[in-house]
Amino acid sequence: MSHENAPHRLTRAEAVLAARRRGVAIVLEDTHDPHNMSAVLRSCEALGLQDVHIVSENQKSAWVNKDVAIGAHRWLTLHEHDGARQAITALRAAGYRINVSQLTPDAVPLSELPRDERSAYVFGNERDGVSSAWLEHADARFVIPTSGFTGSLNLSVAVAVTVYDRLLARSVASFDGDLSESERAELRATWYKRLAHGSVRLEQSFRPYLANPPAAKRSFPVDRNSD
Amino acid sequence: MSHENAPHRLTRAEAVLAARRRGVAIVLEDTHDPHNMSAVLRSCEALGLQDVHIVSENQKSAWVNKDVAIGAHRWLTLHEHDGARQAITALRAAGYRINVSQLTPDAVPLSELPRDERSAYVFGNERDGVSSAWLEHADARFVIPTSGFTGSLNLSVAVAVTVYDRLLARSVASFDGDLSESERAELRATWYKRLAHGSVRLEQSFRPYLANPPAAKRSFPVDRNSD
Repeated sequence: MSHENAPHRLTRAEAVLAARRRGVAIVLEDTHDPHNMSAVLRSCEALGLQDVHIVSENQKSAWVNKDVAIGAHRWLTLHEHDGARQAITALRAAGYRINVSQLTPDAVPLSELPRDERSAYVFGNERDGVSSAWLEHADARFVIPTSGFTGSLNLSVAVAVTVYDRLLARSVASFDGDLSESERAELRATWYKRLAHGSVRLEQSFRPYLANPPAAKRSFPVDRNSD
Repeated sequence: MSHENAPHRLTRAEAVLAARRRGVAIVLEDTHDPHNMSAVLRSCEALGLQDVHIVSENQKSAWVNKDVAIGAHRWLTLHEHDGARQAITALRAAGYRINVSQLTPDAVPLSELPRDERSAYVFGNERDGVSSAWLEHADARFVIPTSGFTGSLNLSVAVAVTVYDRLLARSVASFDGDLSESERAELRATWYKRLAHGSVRLEQSFRPYLANPPAAKRSFPVDRNSD
Protein backbone atom coordinates (compact mmCIF):
# COMPACT_ATOMS: atom_id res chain seq x y z
CA MET A 1 0.00 0.00 0.00
CA SER A 2 1.43 3.37 -0.94
CA HIS A 3 -0.32 6.67 -0.85
CA GLU A 4 1.04 7.65 -4.23
CA ASN A 5 -0.81 4.75 -5.75
CA ALA A 6 -3.99 5.06 -3.72
CA PRO A 7 -6.96 4.19 -5.94
CA HIS A 8 -8.68 7.19 -7.49
CA ARG A 9 -12.03 6.25 -6.01
CA LEU A 10 -10.58 6.37 -2.51
CA THR A 11 -8.90 9.75 -2.91
CA ARG A 12 -12.17 11.00 -4.34
CA ALA A 13 -14.10 9.55 -1.38
CA GLU A 14 -11.74 11.43 0.93
CA ALA A 15 -12.58 14.67 -0.85
CA VAL A 16 -16.30 14.01 -0.50
CA LEU A 17 -15.78 13.12 3.16
CA ALA A 18 -13.78 16.26 3.88
CA ALA A 19 -16.63 18.37 2.50
CA ARG A 20 -19.47 16.47 4.18
CA ARG A 21 -21.90 18.42 6.38
CA ARG A 22 -24.06 17.27 9.29
CA GLY A 23 -24.98 20.75 10.53
CA VAL A 24 -27.77 20.86 7.96
CA ALA A 25 -30.26 17.99 7.70
CA ILE A 26 -33.29 17.54 5.47
CA VAL A 27 -36.51 15.97 6.73
CA LEU A 28 -39.19 14.71 4.34
CA GLU A 29 -42.62 13.77 5.61
CA ASP A 30 -45.00 11.55 3.62
CA THR A 31 -43.38 12.11 0.26
CA HIS A 32 -45.69 10.31 -2.10
CA ASP A 33 -43.79 10.50 -5.33
CA PRO A 34 -40.72 8.26 -5.51
CA HIS A 35 -39.29 10.38 -8.34
CA ASN A 36 -39.49 13.45 -6.16
CA MET A 37 -37.75 11.50 -3.42
CA SER A 38 -35.06 10.38 -5.82
CA ALA A 39 -34.48 13.94 -7.02
CA VAL A 40 -34.25 15.20 -3.43
CA LEU A 41 -31.64 12.60 -2.50
CA ARG A 42 -29.60 13.38 -5.60
CA SER A 43 -29.49 17.09 -4.77
CA CYS A 44 -28.66 16.56 -1.09
CA GLU A 45 -25.84 14.16 -1.93
CA ALA A 46 -24.42 16.33 -4.70
CA LEU A 47 -24.45 19.47 -2.53
CA GLY A 48 -22.67 17.74 0.35
CA LEU A 49 -25.26 16.83 2.99
CA GLN A 50 -25.00 13.51 4.79
CA ASP A 51 -28.33 13.14 6.63
CA VAL A 52 -31.83 12.84 5.25
CA HIS A 53 -34.71 11.94 7.56
CA ILE A 54 -37.71 10.16 6.09
CA VAL A 55 -40.89 10.34 8.13
CA SER A 56 -44.01 8.23 7.64
CA GLU A 57 -46.82 10.04 9.37
CA ASN A 58 -50.02 9.49 7.40
CA GLN A 59 -48.82 6.85 5.03
CA LYS A 60 -47.58 3.37 5.79
CA SER A 61 -44.11 3.77 4.44
CA ALA A 62 -42.67 6.80 2.77
CA TRP A 63 -39.69 4.86 1.65
CA VAL A 64 -41.11 1.91 -0.17
CA ASN A 65 -39.11 2.15 -3.33
CA LYS A 66 -35.40 2.16 -2.60
CA ASP A 67 -34.67 1.28 -6.20
CA VAL A 68 -35.73 4.67 -7.46
CA ALA A 69 -32.96 6.65 -5.81
CA ILE A 70 -30.27 4.87 -7.77
CA GLY A 71 -26.88 6.05 -6.68
CA ALA A 72 -27.30 8.93 -4.29
CA HIS A 73 -28.90 7.02 -1.42
CA ARG A 74 -25.88 4.73 -1.17
CA TRP A 75 -23.73 7.60 0.10
CA LEU A 76 -26.23 9.23 2.42
CA THR A 77 -27.29 8.36 5.94
CA LEU A 78 -31.04 7.82 5.73
CA HIS A 79 -32.96 7.99 9.00
CA GLU A 80 -36.43 6.44 8.91
CA HIS A 81 -39.01 7.54 11.49
CA ASP A 82 -42.39 6.10 12.29
CA GLY A 83 -44.34 9.32 12.68
CA ALA A 84 -43.54 12.98 13.25
CA ARG A 85 -43.28 12.73 17.05
CA GLN A 86 -40.62 10.05 16.89
CA ALA A 87 -38.72 12.13 14.35
CA ILE A 88 -38.95 15.29 16.48
CA THR A 89 -37.62 13.43 19.52
CA ALA A 90 -34.71 12.05 17.50
CA LEU A 91 -33.86 15.43 15.97
CA ARG A 92 -33.97 17.14 19.38
CA ALA A 93 -31.75 14.44 20.85
CA ALA A 94 -29.28 15.06 18.02
CA GLY A 95 -29.27 18.78 18.84
CA TYR A 96 -31.09 20.11 15.80
CA ARG A 97 -33.06 23.32 15.63
CA ILE A 98 -36.28 22.51 13.73
CA ASN A 99 -37.26 24.74 10.81
CA VAL A 100 -40.51 23.84 9.13
CA SER A 101 -41.39 24.79 5.56
CA GLN A 102 -44.82 26.38 5.42
CA LEU A 103 -46.52 28.60 2.83
CA THR A 104 -48.06 31.14 5.19
CA PRO A 105 -47.69 34.92 5.23
CA ASP A 106 -45.96 34.98 8.61
CA ALA A 107 -43.32 32.41 7.66
CA VAL A 108 -39.75 33.75 7.61
CA PRO A 109 -37.99 33.99 4.23
CA LEU A 110 -35.40 31.23 4.06
CA SER A 111 -32.45 33.59 3.62
CA GLU A 112 -33.27 35.27 6.93
CA LEU A 113 -33.11 32.13 9.06
CA PRO A 114 -29.97 31.85 11.19
CA ARG A 115 -27.17 29.89 9.56
CA ASP A 116 -24.95 29.28 12.54
CA GLU A 117 -27.02 26.65 14.35
CA ARG A 118 -27.25 22.94 13.70
CA SER A 119 -30.56 22.87 11.87
CA ALA A 120 -33.05 20.52 10.30
CA TYR A 121 -35.33 21.71 7.48
CA VAL A 122 -38.67 19.92 7.33
CA PHE A 123 -40.75 19.54 4.16
CA GLY A 124 -44.23 18.05 3.96
CA ASN A 125 -45.69 16.70 0.78
CA GLU A 126 -46.80 19.09 -1.94
CA ARG A 127 -50.49 18.54 -1.38
CA ASP A 128 -50.91 18.72 2.38
CA GLY A 129 -47.79 20.35 3.79
CA VAL A 130 -46.44 19.15 7.14
CA SER A 131 -48.51 17.48 9.85
CA SER A 132 -49.51 19.47 12.93
CA ALA A 133 -46.90 18.03 15.30
CA TRP A 134 -44.17 19.81 13.36
CA LEU A 135 -45.90 23.16 13.67
CA GLU A 136 -46.25 22.70 17.43
CA HIS A 137 -42.56 21.99 17.84
CA ALA A 138 -41.05 24.22 15.19
CA ASP A 139 -38.42 26.76 16.20
CA ALA A 140 -39.28 28.62 13.03
CA ARG A 141 -41.54 28.35 10.02
CA PHE A 142 -39.89 29.37 6.77
CA VAL A 143 -40.80 29.91 3.14
CA ILE A 144 -38.88 30.25 -0.08
CA PRO A 145 -40.36 33.52 -1.32
CA THR A 146 -42.15 33.41 -4.65
CA SER A 147 -43.66 36.26 -6.62
CA GLY A 148 -45.39 34.57 -9.56
CA PHE A 149 -48.84 33.30 -10.38
CA THR A 150 -47.41 29.93 -9.41
CA GLY A 151 -47.29 30.14 -5.63
CA SER A 152 -45.05 27.23 -4.79
CA LEU A 153 -42.01 25.32 -5.97
CA ASN A 154 -41.71 21.64 -6.74
CA LEU A 155 -40.58 19.71 -3.64
CA SER A 156 -37.23 18.66 -5.08
CA VAL A 157 -36.57 22.23 -6.20
CA ALA A 158 -37.52 23.63 -2.78
CA VAL A 159 -35.17 21.25 -0.99
CA ALA A 160 -32.25 21.97 -3.35
CA VAL A 161 -32.74 25.72 -3.04
CA THR A 162 -32.79 25.35 0.75
CA VAL A 163 -29.56 23.38 0.83
CA TYR A 164 -27.93 25.81 -1.60
CA ASP A 165 -29.02 28.79 0.48
CA ARG A 166 -27.66 27.22 3.65
CA LEU A 167 -24.31 26.06 2.30
CA LEU A 168 -23.26 27.99 -0.75
CA ALA A 169 -25.23 31.12 -1.49
CA ARG A 170 -23.36 33.46 0.80
CA SER A 171 -19.80 32.31 0.64
CA VAL A 172 -17.19 31.91 -1.95
CA ALA A 173 -17.85 28.26 -2.60
CA SER A 174 -16.01 26.56 0.20
CA PHE A 175 -16.22 22.91 0.89
CA ASP A 176 -15.22 22.69 4.51
CA GLY A 177 -17.09 19.78 5.98
CA ASP A 178 -18.17 19.57 9.61
CA LEU A 179 -17.90 15.89 10.53
CA SER A 180 -15.87 14.73 13.53
CA GLU A 181 -12.97 12.34 12.98
CA SER A 182 -14.98 9.42 14.33
CA GLU A 183 -17.95 10.26 12.09
CA ARG A 184 -15.58 10.34 9.15
CA ALA A 185 -14.03 7.01 10.11
CA GLU A 186 -17.46 5.40 10.31
CA LEU A 187 -18.58 6.73 6.94
CA ARG A 188 -15.25 5.86 5.38
CA ALA A 189 -15.72 2.22 6.35
CA THR A 190 -19.22 2.19 4.83
CA TRP A 191 -18.16 3.95 1.66
CA TYR A 192 -15.02 1.90 1.01
CA LYS A 193 -17.19 -1.19 1.16
CA ARG A 194 -19.61 0.27 -1.37
CA LEU A 195 -16.78 1.49 -3.57
CA ALA A 196 -15.59 -2.09 -3.89
CA HIS A 197 -18.89 -2.89 -5.61
CA GLY A 198 -19.00 -6.39 -4.14
CA SER A 199 -15.47 -7.38 -5.11
CA VAL A 200 -13.74 -9.14 -2.20
CA ARG A 201 -10.37 -8.51 -3.77
CA LEU A 202 -10.99 -4.76 -4.04
CA GLU A 203 -12.40 -4.60 -0.53
CA GLN A 204 -9.27 -6.24 0.80
CA SER A 205 -7.02 -3.89 -1.14
CA PHE A 206 -8.92 -0.90 0.26
CA ARG A 207 -8.80 -2.08 3.86
CA PRO A 208 -5.27 -0.88 4.75
CA TYR A 209 -6.31 2.66 3.77
CA LEU A 210 -9.00 2.70 6.45
CA ALA A 211 -6.47 3.18 9.22
CA ASN A 212 -4.31 5.42 7.09
CA PRO A 213 -6.50 7.21 4.55
CA PRO A 214 -4.99 8.75 1.42
CA ALA A 215 -5.02 12.48 0.83
CA ALA A 216 -8.22 13.87 -0.57
CA LYS A 217 -8.10 14.63 -4.25
CA ARG A 218 -10.63 17.20 -5.32
CA SER A 219 -12.06 16.43 -8.68
CA PHE A 220 -15.52 17.89 -8.49
CA PRO A 221 -17.36 19.30 -10.23
CA VAL A 222 -15.89 17.72 -13.34
CA ASP A 223 -16.48 14.04 -12.72
CA ARG A 224 -20.12 13.48 -13.39
CA ASN A 225 -21.58 10.43 -11.69
CA SER A 226 -18.28 8.62 -11.95
CA ASP A 227 -18.44 6.68 -8.73
CA MET B 1 -65.43 50.26 -12.49
CA SER B 2 -64.08 51.11 -9.07
CA HIS B 3 -60.69 50.29 -7.70
CA GLU B 4 -62.15 49.19 -4.40
CA ASN B 5 -64.01 46.46 -6.21
CA ALA B 6 -61.25 45.50 -8.62
CA PRO B 7 -61.32 41.75 -9.14
CA HIS B 8 -58.88 39.83 -6.95
CA ARG B 9 -57.24 38.21 -9.95
CA LEU B 10 -56.34 41.62 -11.37
CA THR B 11 -54.89 43.01 -8.15
CA ARG B 12 -52.90 39.81 -7.88
CA ALA B 13 -51.70 40.15 -11.48
CA GLU B 14 -50.53 43.68 -10.63
CA ALA B 15 -48.47 42.28 -7.75
CA VAL B 16 -46.89 39.69 -10.03
CA LEU B 17 -46.22 42.38 -12.63
CA ALA B 18 -44.61 44.74 -10.13
CA ALA B 19 -42.20 41.99 -9.12
CA ARG B 20 -41.40 40.75 -12.63
CA ARG B 21 -37.74 40.65 -13.76
CA ARG B 22 -36.24 40.83 -17.22
CA GLY B 23 -32.66 41.43 -16.09
CA VAL B 24 -32.25 37.68 -15.66
CA ALA B 25 -33.20 35.30 -18.48
CA ILE B 26 -32.95 31.53 -18.73
CA VAL B 27 -31.89 29.79 -21.94
CA LEU B 28 -32.49 26.07 -22.47
CA GLU B 29 -30.88 24.24 -25.37
CA ASP B 30 -32.16 20.89 -26.65
CA THR B 31 -34.04 19.94 -23.51
CA HIS B 32 -35.22 16.45 -24.28
CA ASP B 33 -37.46 15.75 -21.35
CA PRO B 34 -40.78 17.62 -21.39
CA HIS B 35 -41.16 17.07 -17.63
CA ASN B 36 -37.83 18.74 -17.03
CA MET B 37 -38.98 21.60 -19.24
CA SER B 38 -42.24 21.87 -17.35
CA ALA B 39 -40.43 21.93 -13.99
CA VAL B 40 -38.06 24.64 -15.26
CA LEU B 41 -40.92 26.87 -16.41
CA ARG B 42 -42.74 26.42 -13.11
CA SER B 43 -39.69 27.52 -11.11
CA CYS B 44 -38.91 30.48 -13.36
CA GLU B 45 -42.50 31.74 -13.20
CA ALA B 46 -42.82 31.22 -9.45
CA LEU B 47 -39.54 33.01 -8.72
CA GLY B 48 -40.49 36.03 -10.86
CA LEU B 49 -38.69 35.73 -14.19
CA GLN B 50 -40.49 36.69 -17.40
CA ASP B 51 -38.25 35.40 -20.21
CA VAL B 52 -37.28 31.87 -21.06
CA HIS B 53 -35.45 31.16 -24.33
CA ILE B 54 -35.86 27.75 -25.91
CA VAL B 55 -33.21 26.76 -28.41
CA SER B 56 -33.39 23.88 -30.88
CA GLU B 57 -29.84 23.17 -31.95
CA ASN B 58 -29.48 19.43 -32.51
CA GLN B 59 -33.07 18.41 -32.27
CA LYS B 60 -35.96 19.34 -34.50
CA SER B 61 -38.03 21.09 -31.90
CA ALA B 62 -37.21 21.45 -28.25
CA TRP B 63 -40.68 22.66 -27.55
CA VAL B 64 -42.95 20.04 -29.00
CA ASN B 65 -45.16 19.48 -26.04
CA LYS B 66 -46.75 22.71 -24.87
CA ASP B 67 -49.33 20.78 -22.93
CA VAL B 68 -46.84 19.56 -20.39
CA ALA B 69 -46.07 22.94 -18.87
CA ILE B 70 -49.61 23.40 -17.66
CA GLY B 71 -50.02 26.77 -16.12
CA ALA B 72 -46.63 28.42 -15.84
CA HIS B 73 -45.96 28.90 -19.56
CA ARG B 74 -49.10 31.00 -19.93
CA TRP B 75 -47.55 33.80 -17.86
CA LEU B 76 -44.05 33.68 -19.30
CA THR B 77 -42.63 35.12 -22.50
CA LEU B 78 -41.18 32.14 -24.35
CA HIS B 79 -38.66 32.91 -27.08
CA GLU B 80 -38.05 30.08 -29.53
CA HIS B 81 -34.80 30.01 -31.51
CA ASP B 82 -33.76 27.86 -34.43
CA GLY B 83 -30.21 27.08 -33.38
CA ALA B 84 -27.66 28.51 -30.97
CA ARG B 85 -26.33 31.18 -33.34
CA GLN B 86 -29.75 32.71 -33.85
CA ALA B 87 -30.30 32.71 -30.09
CA ILE B 88 -26.92 34.33 -29.41
CA THR B 89 -27.65 37.09 -31.94
CA ALA B 90 -31.03 37.75 -30.34
CA LEU B 91 -29.64 37.79 -26.79
CA ARG B 92 -26.84 40.16 -27.79
CA ALA B 93 -29.34 42.45 -29.52
CA ALA B 94 -31.37 42.47 -26.31
CA GLY B 95 -28.29 43.48 -24.34
CA TYR B 96 -27.69 40.29 -22.40
CA ARG B 97 -24.37 39.14 -21.02
CA ILE B 98 -24.13 35.40 -21.80
CA ASN B 99 -23.25 33.02 -18.96
CA VAL B 100 -22.97 29.39 -19.95
CA SER B 101 -23.37 26.52 -17.51
CA GLN B 102 -20.50 24.07 -17.86
CA LEU B 103 -19.09 21.39 -15.58
CA THR B 104 -15.39 22.12 -16.01
CA PRO B 105 -12.75 22.88 -13.39
CA ASP B 106 -12.14 26.41 -14.65
CA ALA B 107 -15.82 27.41 -14.60
CA VAL B 108 -16.68 30.19 -12.14
CA PRO B 109 -18.87 29.29 -9.14
CA LEU B 110 -22.33 30.75 -9.74
CA SER B 111 -22.29 32.94 -6.63
CA GLU B 112 -19.17 34.73 -7.89
CA LEU B 113 -20.67 35.87 -11.22
CA PRO B 114 -21.58 39.57 -11.34
CA ARG B 115 -25.18 40.32 -10.41
CA ASP B 116 -25.46 43.85 -11.68
CA GLU B 117 -25.57 43.18 -15.42
CA ARG B 118 -28.48 42.11 -17.56
CA SER B 119 -27.61 38.44 -17.92
CA ALA B 120 -28.75 35.26 -19.62
CA TYR B 121 -27.93 31.87 -18.09
CA VAL B 122 -27.61 29.08 -20.64
CA PHE B 123 -28.20 25.40 -19.85
CA GLY B 124 -27.60 22.51 -22.22
CA ASN B 125 -29.23 19.14 -21.81
CA GLU B 126 -28.08 16.83 -19.05
CA ARG B 127 -26.34 14.39 -21.36
CA ASP B 128 -24.36 16.59 -23.72
CA GLY B 129 -24.14 20.03 -22.15
CA VAL B 130 -24.26 23.10 -24.40
CA SER B 131 -23.26 23.16 -28.07
CA SER B 132 -19.93 24.69 -29.07
CA ALA B 133 -21.30 28.02 -30.34
CA TRP B 134 -22.24 28.97 -26.77
CA LEU B 135 -18.72 28.32 -25.52
CA GLU B 136 -17.25 30.47 -28.28
CA HIS B 137 -19.48 33.40 -27.40
CA ALA B 138 -19.77 33.05 -23.63
CA ASP B 139 -18.82 35.98 -21.44
CA ALA B 140 -18.38 33.48 -18.63
CA ARG B 141 -18.72 29.79 -17.94
CA PHE B 142 -20.21 28.98 -14.56
CA VAL B 143 -20.93 25.98 -12.39
CA ILE B 144 -23.07 25.32 -9.35
CA PRO B 145 -20.44 23.83 -7.07
CA THR B 146 -21.04 20.29 -5.88
CA SER B 147 -19.01 18.22 -3.44
CA GLY B 148 -20.66 14.80 -3.52
CA PHE B 149 -20.18 11.54 -5.35
CA THR B 150 -22.97 12.81 -7.55
CA GLY B 151 -21.25 15.41 -9.68
CA SER B 152 -24.19 17.27 -11.15
CA LEU B 153 -27.68 18.49 -10.38
CA ASN B 154 -30.88 17.74 -12.21
CA LEU B 155 -31.56 20.39 -14.89
CA SER B 156 -34.68 21.78 -13.25
CA VAL B 157 -32.86 21.97 -9.91
CA ALA B 158 -29.85 23.70 -11.50
CA VAL B 159 -32.05 26.33 -13.14
CA ALA B 160 -34.03 27.01 -9.95
CA VAL B 161 -30.87 27.33 -7.87
CA THR B 162 -29.46 29.74 -10.46
CA VAL B 163 -32.56 31.95 -10.41
CA TYR B 164 -32.65 31.86 -6.61
CA ASP B 165 -28.98 32.80 -6.39
CA ARG B 166 -29.45 35.71 -8.78
CA LEU B 167 -32.63 37.13 -7.25
CA LEU B 168 -33.05 36.12 -3.66
CA ALA B 169 -30.05 34.56 -2.01
CA ARG B 170 -28.27 37.75 -1.03
CA SER B 171 -31.02 40.14 -0.16
CA VAL B 172 -33.80 40.31 2.29
CA ALA B 173 -36.44 38.91 -0.02
CA SER B 174 -37.43 41.93 -2.03
CA PHE B 175 -39.75 41.79 -4.95
CA ASP B 176 -38.84 44.89 -6.88
CA GLY B 177 -39.37 44.12 -10.53
CA ASP B 178 -37.38 45.70 -13.34
CA LEU B 179 -39.86 46.05 -16.23
CA SER B 180 -40.47 49.37 -17.93
CA GLU B 181 -43.97 50.86 -17.93
CA SER B 182 -44.49 49.91 -21.56
CA GLU B 183 -43.34 46.34 -20.94
CA ARG B 184 -45.76 46.14 -18.03
CA ALA B 185 -48.61 47.49 -20.15
CA GLU B 186 -47.94 44.90 -22.82
CA LEU B 187 -47.85 42.02 -20.39
CA ARG B 188 -50.89 43.32 -18.55
CA ALA B 189 -52.90 43.16 -21.76
CA THR B 190 -51.82 39.57 -22.39
CA TRP B 191 -52.42 38.47 -18.82
CA TYR B 192 -55.84 40.10 -18.42
CA LYS B 193 -56.96 38.20 -21.50
CA ARG B 194 -55.73 34.95 -20.02
CA LEU B 195 -57.22 35.73 -16.64
CA ALA B 196 -60.63 35.95 -18.32
CA HIS B 197 -60.26 32.28 -19.22
CA GLY B 198 -62.16 32.72 -22.49
CA SER B 199 -65.14 34.58 -21.00
CA VAL B 200 -66.04 37.55 -23.20
CA ARG B 201 -68.02 39.09 -20.35
CA LEU B 202 -65.06 38.92 -17.98
CA GLU B 203 -62.66 40.21 -20.62
CA GLN B 204 -64.91 43.22 -21.16
CA SER B 205 -65.17 43.89 -17.44
CA PHE B 206 -61.37 43.78 -17.15
CA ARG B 207 -60.75 46.11 -20.08
CA PRO B 208 -61.25 49.45 -18.27
CA TYR B 209 -58.54 48.46 -15.80
CA LEU B 210 -55.97 48.24 -18.57
CA ALA B 211 -55.69 52.01 -18.83
CA ASN B 212 -56.08 52.48 -15.13
CA PRO B 213 -54.75 49.40 -13.35
CA PRO B 214 -55.75 48.65 -9.76
CA ALA B 215 -53.24 48.69 -6.94
CA ALA B 216 -51.18 45.57 -6.56
CA LYS B 217 -52.26 43.31 -3.76
CA ARG B 218 -49.53 41.04 -2.54
CA SER B 219 -50.84 37.67 -1.61
CA PHE B 220 -47.91 35.41 -2.25
CA PRO B 221 -46.66 33.08 -1.05
CA VAL B 222 -49.91 31.87 0.44
CA ASP B 223 -52.08 31.38 -2.63
CA ARG B 224 -50.87 28.19 -4.15
CA ASN B 225 -51.62 27.85 -7.84
CA SER B 226 -54.78 29.87 -7.51
CA ASP B 227 -54.73 31.71 -10.77
